[in-house]
Amino acid sequence: MGVVGGTGREGFALGVRWAAAGLSVVLGSRVRERGVEAARRAAGLDLRGAVSGGTNREAAEGAALVVLAVPFHAHEEVLPEIEPLVRGKVVVDTTVSLMSVDPPQLSLPPEGSAAQRVQAMLPHARVVAAFHTVSAHKLAQLGRELEEDTLVCGDDPLAKRQVARLAEAVGLRPVDAGGLDQASTLERLAALVVGLNRRYRRKAVGVRFVGL
Amino acid sequence: MGVVGGTGREGFALGVRWAAAGLSVVLGSRVRERGVEAARRAAGLDLRGAVSGGTNREAAEGAALVVLAVPFHAHEEVLPEIEPLVRGKVVVDTTVSLMSVDPPQLSLPPEGSAAQRVQAMLPHARVVAAFHTVSAHKLAQLGRELEEDTLVCGDDPLAKRQVARLAEAVGLRPVDAGGLDQASTLERLAALVVGLNRRYRRKAVGVRFVGL
Repeated sequence: MGVVGGTGREGFALGVRWAAAGLSVVLGSRVRERGVEAARRAAGLDLRGAVSGGTNREAAEGAALVVLAVPFHAHEEVLPEIEPLVRGKVVVDTTVSLMSVDPPQLSLPPEGSAAQRVQAMLPHARVVAAFHTVSAHKLAQLGRELEEDTLVCGDDPLAKRQVARLAEAVGLRPVDAGGLDQASTLERLAALVVGLNRRYRRKAVGVRFVGL
Repeated sequence: MGVVGGTGREGFALGVRWAAAGLSVVLGSRVRERGVEAARRAAGLDLRGAVSGGTNREAAEGAALVVLAVPFHAHEEVLPEIEPLVRGKVVVDTTVSLMSVDPPQLSLPPEGSAAQRVQAMLPHARVVAAFHTVSAHKLAQLGRELEEDTLVCGDDPLAKRQVARLAEAVGLRPVDAGGLDQASTLERLAALVVGLNRRYRRKAVGVRFVGL
């Protein structure tokens, strides 16, 4: 699996979790050396899967499944670069497009959500939105159980099922939230969770559905 | 406390829960007899507080705190009627403005959310939005513990604190979601929960925040 933006907090933490679960992970960065350096850092951890590092293009090219973990403002630069490399592939979008953090203010694009915009910019990819409300802080503590859910939405049922298995691999329960048009609710909920972390001085607020 | 729309599923279930917790509750309806009949039904249950019934006006007039539990399409009729009676009072809005249930489709008003529209129509009330994701089905089973949270948002901190205590009275943990401008996220999350109940064939999906 390739993580585009695999040197950021969220991308690195997710990549390491998947490697700990035994998956092969490529951590991509805009700058090749930073990807390589992130893989070196990961190599010091207790992982069952292989981690390598490189450019975002390399992360996207080699993998059957690509996770997008770059900030929203970097999409304009990064997405056209990887577009030819992700055709037909599952692309997992984790973007929460905050313009400010305190208070958290979401800036949703005209497409309705960051994920729908990603789908518009990667028209031949099978975009699935997930992992928005899972804190990088908690992911980064490898031994820590996650005891929470991740909402997953997308228009391709098979792609969604693959992403559900990815969630399960790191101990998150996937919850099917419907089509990609639901992504704005996932992104808004993530902004709300950022707000709860601030208001209650926490670092790892997450969401769990009861009665499910 | 007065429940405007206290004969509907959600309003009745909430009213009965509060009465079970020892609060005095007036169940309001557009038709007086229906309010009275709902109070009669409630009297058969094991409640510590008094329940009476009447018109929506009577429910709003007698109470220091008013819960709004009528469908969104009835707001145009009901809100102007109670407007002079709720000035300065806390009004708890529970509205989720679904145009259709399968799939759940939210119709948000130009104000941004049902709760913000309620505030616009009741300019002298202190509107707080809460209780959107708590299932009437589960509320109605009086002995059943709720084990979930309710997000609470509003612009008046004291009003919000009163509503938080109302939540605690029925065993719901209140979670402060910020100002009334956050209400659309609460309403969207409720629509998402309606979708989860349908997709997973459940009746009482709710939300709980972990790490809080």
